[in-house]
Amino acid sequence: MQITFLGTSAGVPTRARNVAGLALRLPQRGEWWLFDCGEGTQHRIIRSQLSLGQLTRIFITHLHGDHIFGLPGLLATGKLAAGGRRTHVYGPAGLEDYLRACWQHTEAQGSFPVEVHTVEPGEVFADEGFIVSCLPLVHRVPTFGYRVAERDHTGKFQVEEAARLGVPSGPLYGKLKRGETIILPDGRRIDGRQLVEPMQRGRKFAYCSDTTYCDASVELARDADVLVHEATFAQQDEELACRSKHSTATMAAQVALEAHAQSLILTHISPRYVPGNPITPNDLLQEARAIFPRTEIAYDFFSIEVARC
Amino acid sequence: MQITFLGTSAGVPTRARNVAGLALRLPQRGEWWLFDCGEGTQHRIIRSQLSLGQLTRIFITHLHGDHIFGLPGLLATGKLAAGGRRTHVYGPAGLEDYLRACWQHTEAQGSFPVEVHTVEPGEVFADEGFIVSCLPLVHRVPTFGYRVAERDHTGKFQVEEAARLGVPSGPLYGKLKRGETIILPDGRRIDGRQLVEPMQRGRKFAYCSDTTYCDASVELARDADVLVHEATFAQQDEELACRSKHSTATMAAQVALEAHAQSLILTHISPRYVPGNPITPNDLLQEARAIFPRTEIAYDFFSIEVARC
Repeated sequence: MQITFLGTSAGVPTRARNVAGLALRLPQRGEWWLFDCGEGTQHRIIRSQLSLGQLTRIFITHLHGDHIFGLPGLLATGKLAAGGRRTHVYGPAGLEDYLRACWQHTEAQGSFPVEVHTVEPGEVFADEGFIVSCLPLVHRVPTFGYRVAERDHTGKFQVEEAARLGVPSGPLYGKLKRGETIILPDGRRIDGRQLVEPMQRGRKFAYCSDTTYCDASVELARDADVLVHEATFAQQDEELACRSKHSTATMAAQVALEAHAQSLILTHISPRYVPGNPITPNDLLQEARAIFPRTEIAYDFFSIEVARC
Repeated sequence: MQITFLGTSAGVPTRARNVAGLALRLPQRGEWWLFDCGEGTQHRIIRSQLSLGQLTRIFITHLHGDHIFGLPGLLATGKLAAGGRRTHVYGPAGLEDYLRACWQHTEAQGSFPVEVHTVEPGEVFADEGFIVSCLPLVHRVPTFGYRVAERDHTGKFQVEEAARLGVPSGPLYGKLKRGETIILPDGRRIDGRQLVEPMQRGRKFAYCSDTTYCDASVELARDADVLVHEATFAQQDEELACRSKHSTATMAAQVALEAHAQSLILTHISPRYVPGNPITPNDLLQEARAIFPRTEIAYDFFSIEVARC
């Protein structure tokens, strides 16, 4: 699992930062998922290592323009790349109406192999490898944060080693796989636990944007290997954050701390923190690190591995 | 008058070319107008010398995504820059519904000081300096080409020279301004035509995209100083052009020739003409120049003065 930031600005694009978009790569599947899709996300994808033909799922947090205005164009372009494969889009109520309206007015209705899923708190997608769930955050419109939990891998049974020890294939294999001890016809005792590799804990990734500090963020980020949390403002601009229902870097760090996350990445940085403003994005980073040291601040195209700790 | 290309690709963006967008700068007014607004147009504006605060009018040719998916985001960002000033948007029926749908689903309705004008063939805007008119082109959906005609300037009266010659201010000035000859009390004859600068013909700019070859393009481009015409395909791909109702470079050149335009700029180039395809954008240029030598091919950020000939 690897995440790549396609946009890290809040509200409007700047020369350096595009509006919201984040890719989660699942190399073992040859596919990737997108979280939010501000205008120009497809332009960022063109300049990345990502292939539109491998994009299978899109998760939208909320229906503000800086999170969805890139979706119609991305789907129109992606249609060409998808080769008939269906793209699944998840998001709050209203998302399907929005897309339908865009397509209706642009003569494209019906031509996109897209399935839109309206999410409710709880599980939104699950298969043999992953569970994706969401919870409502606290913003000015209905907004969902997402948690992607890789399933734990039960330890692999070392079948070659069992064969080398002379265990006959059949029911004894099942016992060994369950970690039981068996006795072979020649009297040897074999401990199954020696033949099963340790269980591999699944990795966890949480994405909380846009929101002010809330318990749902903490719950989504519980024990996450990587928490990506919005940090639109510095704590000095807390009043702005409260009024617009955004977070300060301090709030993001508090979420990471309370959730016992392994690492925090700040994104959705206000365009106000440009040269000329005495506060810089680096100040947001230092502010968060004072509370939660394992923090980074995202920039466009920043990539990081979601690694087990 | 100066035009700047903000996007020159057809259908989808490429690394080098964004989708449709063209700025017409009117430096004498301290404002500029936009023609079409594909996704990412505001990103191109950020990287240009153009200021969103000086954008006053937007003309949309048709409701295909590669010409309008950047409009909601541009208006949302532009609202911040406009300082309460109203932005006028002109385009085919359905444009207002599209924008309303985007705003309705993104909590932004009512917050944009935007006035949408549904255009009909003929004059769409006129003031003391310019007349903008449109005609229906031939594409898969209702599409309009635009012509911007600067009004002719009557020659300036050289008031300082009249004073130097001892003409008393008053009714004699009026006669001189009209080019008449007057006799001063001291018997000198003064020819008004010597005191009035020659009339300045207004400049004319035409924008025809998307369309296959049609008479309306010729009419819009009549005697234009600059004609910007789509040239999605090479003549070798004429079948594709006819099927999708686009133009070849040859068709664009024929329009320029028949309209007696002064210059032609090709844009809306198919992304198929990339390395690997034996046909290149330069081939489109040469194809057009064989018919109409005063042709250029646009690239993103290409700027050119609309000069009187």
